[in-house]
Amino acid sequence: MIQLYTDSSPNGFKITIALEELGLPYVLHHVDIDKGENRRPEFLRLNPFGRIPVLVDDGSGIALFESAAILLYLAEKTGRLLPTEEKARWEAIKWLTVHAASVGPLVGQRVHFELLAAERHPAAIERYRRLTDDAFSVLDSHLASRPYFAGDDYSIADIAHFGWTHIAQIIRFDFSALPHLSAWHQRIAARPAVQRGVTLPAPATGA
Amino acid sequence: MIQLYTDSSPNGFKITIALEELGLPYVLHHVDIDKGENRRPEFLRLNPFGRIPVLVDDGSGIALFESAAILLYLAEKTGRLLPTEEKARWEAIKWLTVHAASVGPLVGQRVHFELLAAERHPAAIERYRRLTDDAFSVLDSHLASRPYFAGDDYSIADIAHFGWTHIAQIIRFDFSALPHLSAWHQRIAARPAVQRGVTLPAPATGA
Repeated sequence: MIQLYTDSSPNGFKITIALEELGLPYVLHHVDIDKGENRRPEFLRLNPFGRIPVLVDDGSGIALFESAAILLYLAEKTGRLLPTEEKARWEAIKWLTVHAASVGPLVGQRVHFELLAAERHPAAIERYRRLTDDAFSVLDSHLASRPYFAGDDYSIADIAHFGWTHIAQIIRFDFSALPHLSAWHQRIAARPAVQRGVTLPAPATGA
Repeated sequence: MIQLYTDSSPNGFKITIALEELGLPYVLHHVDIDKGENRRPEFLRLNPFGRIPVLVDDGSGIALFESAAILLYLAEKTGRLLPTEEKARWEAIKWLTVHAASVGPLVGQRVHFELLAAERHPAAIERYRRLTDDAFSVLDSHLASRPYFAGDDYSIADIAHFGWTHIAQIIRFDFSALPHLSAWHQRIAARPAVQRGVTLPAPATGA
């Protein structure tokens, strides 16, 4: 059985969406970050960084953290959500990595300085607005000529990016002026598995 | 032939190190960021984000950016620098992703606020010092009981982390109090291919 330790967050939703898409049975463990459950010793043994999501596959004995690594594992395990043709496969891995290493961290920092920081620092707010706007603009151009990040097929790259565009809308980071990114977002949001995934373990509130 | 577009930087060195380790022939294209060459139209066609490294494999027609994706591609292409045993393989991919999605971006933001920002913002400096110190501390604990990130074998996970610890030393981000991370760093730094890789296309100056 697959054990998933997660909370309502952009990185968590990536994995609940993927598991719902794949129809894999799994046990959902809610790690409530607001209650500090991610800093408990038993969770830190699963991930010493104290971050969700964590996936443990009892069958293979593989234990993973970092959502991009988990997505890749689930795709390889099932042979789904990742193209098999070599060029398309590496397109998917490339755009998955763009999300994991660049867009995700930048939006995360923007959330911190714009919504969470105790002290307001205009230069830092401006920095992360500019960097995330620039990144979203490149994503928009990329999606102008293809329906999904890797080309014709929906993949883990789309799921990774959607984790954050879903939250971006809830916290009013506006990308409505980007028509291709917006259309792609609606296309992903319409999928039943995605609609289930973003409610597990609970819907995000933006709070 | 493999075409590598790169500059002297932590992300660039990851790929020159990997190519030197693998002994693969490649053509080195120096994209001089100080001269704005990464914003030229011909480079933006290779990577619309305008960032190095970019690798184009003429043989397979695969064109990649994002250093973690490139490292994974080179490892899969050659069957080296990535364990074949399933658990160790996913350990390597997990710790590669830890670098790409977490440690690398955090150190990058610390460099910005501590060394590059026009305006000094103590709260942001403190934030990224704390986050990078916390991350380095987890890496140190992980390396207390194994010689390499994935266990017994040197892998692309080590190369990814080394790209930034190499620069961290040059710009005096001190991790000498972390004995396991320091010993690991010295172990990697002693490798001839690593010593060649960090001079290509030119050694980093910290400027």
